[in-house]
Amino acid sequence: MIKVIGLGPGSSSHQTPEAKDALLWADVIVGYKTYIDLITPDLLQDKEILSTGMKREIDRCEAAINEALKGRKTVIVSSGDPGIYGMAGLVLELVHNRGLDNRLDVEIVPGIPALCAAAALLGAPLMHDFAVISLSDLLTPWELIKKRLLAALRADFVIVIYNPRSKKRVSQFHEVMELVIDKRGKDTPVGVVKNASRPGETVSATVAERVDETDIDMLTILVIGSSSTKITGNRMVTPRGYMEKYRS
Amino acid sequence: MIKVIGLGPGSSSHQTPEAKDALLWADVIVGYKTYIDLITPDLLQDKEILSTGMKREIDRCEAAINEALKGRKTVIVSSGDPGIYGMAGLVLELVHNRGLDNRLDVEIVPGIPALCAAAALLGAPLMHDFAVISLSDLLTPWELIKKRLLAALRADFVIVIYNPRSKKRVSQFHEVMELVIDKRGKDTPVGVVKNASRPGETVSATVAERVDETDIDMLTILVIGSSSTKITGNRMVTPRGYMEKYRS
Repeated sequence: MIKVIGLGPGSSSHQTPEAKDALLWADVIVGYKTYIDLITPDLLQDKEILSTGMKREIDRCEAAINEALKGRKTVIVSSGDPGIYGMAGLVLELVHNRGLDNRLDVEIVPGIPALCAAAALLGAPLMHDFAVISLSDLLTPWELIKKRLLAALRADFVIVIYNPRSKKRVSQFHEVMELVIDKRGKDTPVGVVKNASRPGETVSATVAERVDETDIDMLTILVIGSSSTKITGNRMVTPRGYMEKYRS
Repeated sequence: MIKVIGLGPGSSSHQTPEAKDALLWADVIVGYKTYIDLITPDLLQDKEILSTGMKREIDRCEAAINEALKGRKTVIVSSGDPGIYGMAGLVLELVHNRGLDNRLDVEIVPGIPALCAAAALLGAPLMHDFAVISLSDLLTPWELIKKRLLAALRADFVIVIYNPRSKKRVSQFHEVMELVIDKRGKDTPVGVVKNASRPGETVSATVAERVDETDIDMLTILVIGSSSTKITGNRMVTPRGYMEKYRS
């Protein structure tokens, strides 16, 4: 059996009992080293750790499946929630493609997603309908990403941006911020959260024209406000509408 | 001080240490009765519980603020994540409107959102960009909800639907399913999850034309697949694109 678990954004105070029980249950723990490092050492005692670098996702998942086929209790770790840009999908695809659907149980154990941790630090920007978009064009054509961004801007969704900018990929984020300013205005509230609940955490509630692009990296989460999102003090809030309805 | 905490979708195995610590810390716990009932009784010992029925959100939050102003440690509970259609926003709005931003600390403690619990039970439908839409038209004009739904359908987002259908509000959900079938086809994968990680949990991965509308209620979460979402066996998966890129 394989359990694909979410460790939450960073701090062990965000790790659920279900995720911890899965780690205790495991014979083998498979994951990218940075995620393994989020686990407190006592949970790793007497476990075999299979860890590879980034961009070896298929290798890691294949290794996990092979361990599970030997009868070993296998856990694959993701940060955040394994179901949001995490490892859950790839594991299920590989199991299915190898014809193992009926031979190998796969359980997905949810975790606190980075978007919830970022929203909590900013205040309450996700009180109303929102869209979640990754700017990574490694696996998705940039034209499709831009189409989704434009649709979300036009329909007045709050927008959560994952993977906004890497060392090599900088022009796309610049283009995104230009579109935000063009379609929603330079005063659009933007929340910027880096390293949520990890060392080096920074939180900023600002407006579109003041976002410092050079400060944005792959692990930054951005929240772009809708037309009703407000910044009050250092908080970003999208009203759900109670006040307008019941206090007007 | 007020902590607005998320209890996760239901089971205590999804409640984070941070949320439990907040409950232990509290003098007063404020919340809708159904959510208070998600807390194990030992965490409620010696606490004052302020519980009111649904649709009294402002009263509950005002009561919590008044308790905190007396110097009592106050916790407001939401199910799921308090930052996604939860209580976080209303608390921050009320605190701000009463001019208490500098007098009253408000901390938002994230929880596993219902959308992650539903996705985990379905497989991995949220591996790619997704939009989250509530169909409740109590606080949002139906025309805006429909505009967002159409934009998300056209831009090929996976779509998570909250509050799809109540006893009184049935025509809107019917209209949504007609739009899904019209824009994406009758074979569009649809995941239907009721009572995720609570008693009475049901999970179904089906297609748009087979969704039984009479079986959908306010607490059902629906996940409408994008053009790349597949149903394999009883699992719903939206590929992230690794296989297409590295195994073609």
